[in-house]
Amino acid sequence: MTEALDELRTRLQEVSDLSSAAALLSWDQMTYMPPGGAEARGRQIAMLEKLAHARRTDPRMGELFGKLANVPEDSREQALVRVARRKYDLARRVPSSFVSESSEHAAASYVAWTKARPENDFATMRPFLERTVELSQRYADFFPGYEHPADPHMDASDEGMTAARVKELFDSLRGALVPLVAAIGAKPSPDDAFLHRTYPVPVQLEFGRSIIEALGYDFDRGRQDFTHHPFMTKFAHGDVRITTRAKENDVGDAFFSTVHEAGHALYEQGIDASLDGTPLGEGVSAGVHESQSRLWENLVARSRPFWSWAYPQLRAAFPENLKDVDVDAFHRAINRVTPSLIRVDADEVTYNLHVMVRVDLEMRLLDGRLAVRDLPDAWHAAYQATLGVRAPDDRDGVLQDVHWYSGLLGGAFQGYTLGNVMGAQFFAAARRALPDLDERIAHGEFGTLRGWLTENLYRHGSTHRPLELVERATGKPLSTDDFVGYLRSKFGALYGIDTSTLR
Amino acid sequence: MTEALDELRTRLQEVSDLSSAAALLSWDQMTYMPPGGAEARGRQIAMLEKLAHARRTDPRMGELFGKLANVPEDSREQALVRVARRKYDLARRVPSSFVSESSEHAAASYVAWTKARPENDFATMRPFLERTVELSQRYADFFPGYEHPADPHMDASDEGMTAARVKELFDSLRGALVPLVAAIGAKPSPDDAFLHRTYPVPVQLEFGRSIIEALGYDFDRGRQDFTHHPFMTKFAHGDVRITTRAKENDVGDAFFSTVHEAGHALYEQGIDASLDGTPLGEGVSAGVHESQSRLWENLVARSRPFWSWAYPQLRAAFPENLKDVDVDAFHRAINRVTPSLIRVDADEVTYNLHVMVRVDLEMRLLDGRLAVRDLPDAWHAAYQATLGVRAPDDRDGVLQDVHWYSGLLGGAFQGYTLGNVMGAQFFAAARRALPDLDERIAHGEFGTLRGWLTENLYRHGSTHRPLELVERATGKPLSTDDFVGYLRSKFGALYGIDTSTLR
Repeated sequence: MTEALDELRTRLQEVSDLSSAAALLSWDQMTYMPPGGAEARGRQIAMLEKLAHARRTDPRMGELFGKLANVPEDSREQALVRVARRKYDLARRVPSSFVSESSEHAAASYVAWTKARPENDFATMRPFLERTVELSQRYADFFPGYEHPADPHMDASDEGMTAARVKELFDSLRGALVPLVAAIGAKPSPDDAFLHRTYPVPVQLEFGRSIIEALGYDFDRGRQDFTHHPFMTKFAHGDVRITTRAKENDVGDAFFSTVHEAGHALYEQGIDASLDGTPLGEGVSAGVHESQSRLWENLVARSRPFWSWAYPQLRAAFPENLKDVDVDAFHRAINRVTPSLIRVDADEVTYNLHVMVRVDLEMRLLDGRLAVRDLPDAWHAAYQATLGVRAPDDRDGVLQDVHWYSGLLGGAFQGYTLGNVMGAQFFAAARRALPDLDERIAHGEFGTLRGWLTENLYRHGSTHRPLELVERATGKPLSTDDFVGYLRSKFGALYGIDTSTLR
Repeated sequence: MTEALDELRTRLQEVSDLSSAAALLSWDQMTYMPPGGAEARGRQIAMLEKLAHARRTDPRMGELFGKLANVPEDSREQALVRVARRKYDLARRVPSSFVSESSEHAAASYVAWTKARPENDFATMRPFLERTVELSQRYADFFPGYEHPADPHMDASDEGMTAARVKELFDSLRGALVPLVAAIGAKPSPDDAFLHRTYPVPVQLEFGRSIIEALGYDFDRGRQDFTHHPFMTKFAHGDVRITTRAKENDVGDAFFSTVHEAGHALYEQGIDASLDGTPLGEGVSAGVHESQSRLWENLVARSRPFWSWAYPQLRAAFPENLKDVDVDAFHRAINRVTPSLIRVDADEVTYNLHVMVRVDLEMRLLDGRLAVRDLPDAWHAAYQATLGVRAPDDRDGVLQDVHWYSGLLGGAFQGYTLGNVMGAQFFAAARRALPDLDERIAHGEFGTLRGWLTENLYRHGSTHRPLELVERATGKPLSTDDFVGYLRSKFGALYGIDTSTLR
């Protein structure tokens, strides 16, 4: 058995190294690659991914799992075998001809979208999206026995999640959010014009860098570069990078995206080094990952205690811009809630309604209740009903997000809101365990929180299933209670709303 | 046959893509990788190289060459089969156990050297170097029939070269250089102190960048970054990168290294795009490659016509530093000849004597005429005899260059001087074809020269053997005549020496 385990580990390390090499090629493509490199780079990444896939689905892996059927219960070895086998099964079920077909379609669709979105041209994208829906349904059929065709997609990125479970969570959340948004809408909106004064980019970056260093992001095992869309990527336990973008007339954009990506990175940097190179050495699910980016971005870095510590530093960095703004005015401005058209610019409260609109439309596309040709109208209707706004065109409507035009449907959007829900539940548990948490944050002491998260979440990597991890760390099953409680308490106070009347 | 060719091309593309991926991982290691990434990176690069090696030596390749024995004479296909087969044979002859053994030894030796050189500790390096000599001899034995154990090493990097041929060329060159160096030494040395004023690095870089753009380096298919040791690397026809370093108190260091690496890159960027991904799509040999870096660095960018155009720009970039220096004084300073201890800092004339010392010592180590224990004394004796200088210690003596401590002996150093010799021969041919070349250079018009080089050298990649390429492009076999003529004419004029008396 030791021999089989050793061989399994060696093979997994190879898969990991090939995937990491592909990830570095992608990172370079987004950061430094000159335009002329694009064509060969696409081919090189595809090749490395193909090699990783071949190794991941090598029948020898199946033989090894057979030999390892009797690893001790509840051991790390058992977790390793379970997770490796899950990835093996997922990869084996989907024929590589399908993988190529859908990658090629996704690439072509993405290229078309980059042109069609600015031209507000949904007609061009309609056949692409129709094929995407059809491919997404075919993907589901590789996993017979599902209740809803979104289930296999969800399970792949958020193990244990189904369309039914997501719907249940989201319905409960929507019931709480809609009246909260309405109550906030009835109040005067705080001034946030000063966030859009001129903030020189290098100073913004230096400020962001110093803050995430204080949060615990380890620059000896990472770095930050510029990309059009910020992301986190990992090449090994010792190399977890983040990217950002910055706008001179928006002091929040780069900062919160920096903390968001640093949150993802704190999770990966916190995984036990001994798990590196195995499938246990990665964040366990899209939702849990997003819980950490959102926890650091919102529950920490948009909190009043955080700015007690950080605002004097921000003001020192931009003394002219902020001399007429006190910390409370600043805190109100960065937490301004307003129904808007664009998901990625949305505040903490309305953000989830954007997600729900998309998830609901996706479910209906996948199970046939909605045709792609009717999607634009359905989008407008859903936005009107949920957020009370209507996009003037498809550019800021159905063409808004890259997701539907660069991959399959059903696996991505719910993770964002699951992340918010989980993040609040983890944070509430940390707060129970660390009663002086706010005070520590107000003094710029983040090691205690990071320590709690490392102990209860990060170090485990993918050892526990996502929903088990939530329950182990927080003492209760996943629920929207903590998130709703957090939003009511925070925004009730900020907007002077008696949230007890909203229940 | 078409089928076999297609399969061969597909397989070669895979080898190329794996090698390019490994090269990108190395580039990142040198440029941006955080320290924590080192351990995994070494393993990842080794893995990609192993995969490339396995494909390069796949027996199926041998079968394909069998099927392709009758490709038409003098066709591009024949060249492809010939070069691919040569690489296959080279790789097949050397057992992979030997490759691992010597890579591991090279890595350990390099690590020891980084410590031993600053400590002037040859005793520590002696056993490493003894093993390197022994491994280099064993490598040669995989190619029975050689005349000198250096021959297989030379042939691998400079096809067609042997120890005997190199000795003949170098003897002829030495005969011309030694009296020239002596004659220059009898003349007063030009002042170059102003080269060492304070030149802010960002301005240096911007100047270098604008110059290589004018030379024709295409930043849409490349970029420049910082590394400790400058280099050029290629990931595809559309992605050929260079690196540099810069010292605030040396205006020449970054500039000439930038032009040097850009010269390598102009060669690679000029190779016909249709050869990309095959072994024909690479520079043909170490010597020819170096000929292009040295041609642009020395024959162009250290010439008087070049500075007629460039000096006003340099002066505009550093008006305070250079206000008391006219273009002739500047030109004399950057061409100052002085026997020195360090190869990489040497001028155009003495540089080759440094190379010859090394090559001669290597030959004697490899054929047993010299023992490693006697190397330090032999080094000092050779420097005394050739350059009239003596290093105060081994740090600037036998421990000076990384080459002997990071790989096998016999394949590297001669390429530097072959490059100088070939570069002058190519440039002389270009001058014959383009009589107004100096005038064009003096007006910053480099397209004509680059066009000639592209037509006669670059576009062919590895289609012609190096010595054939020299003969096709210049109309005569490789000889030191043009290089000696160039040095005599240029430095005769600069130092007021009647070089006819030196013959």
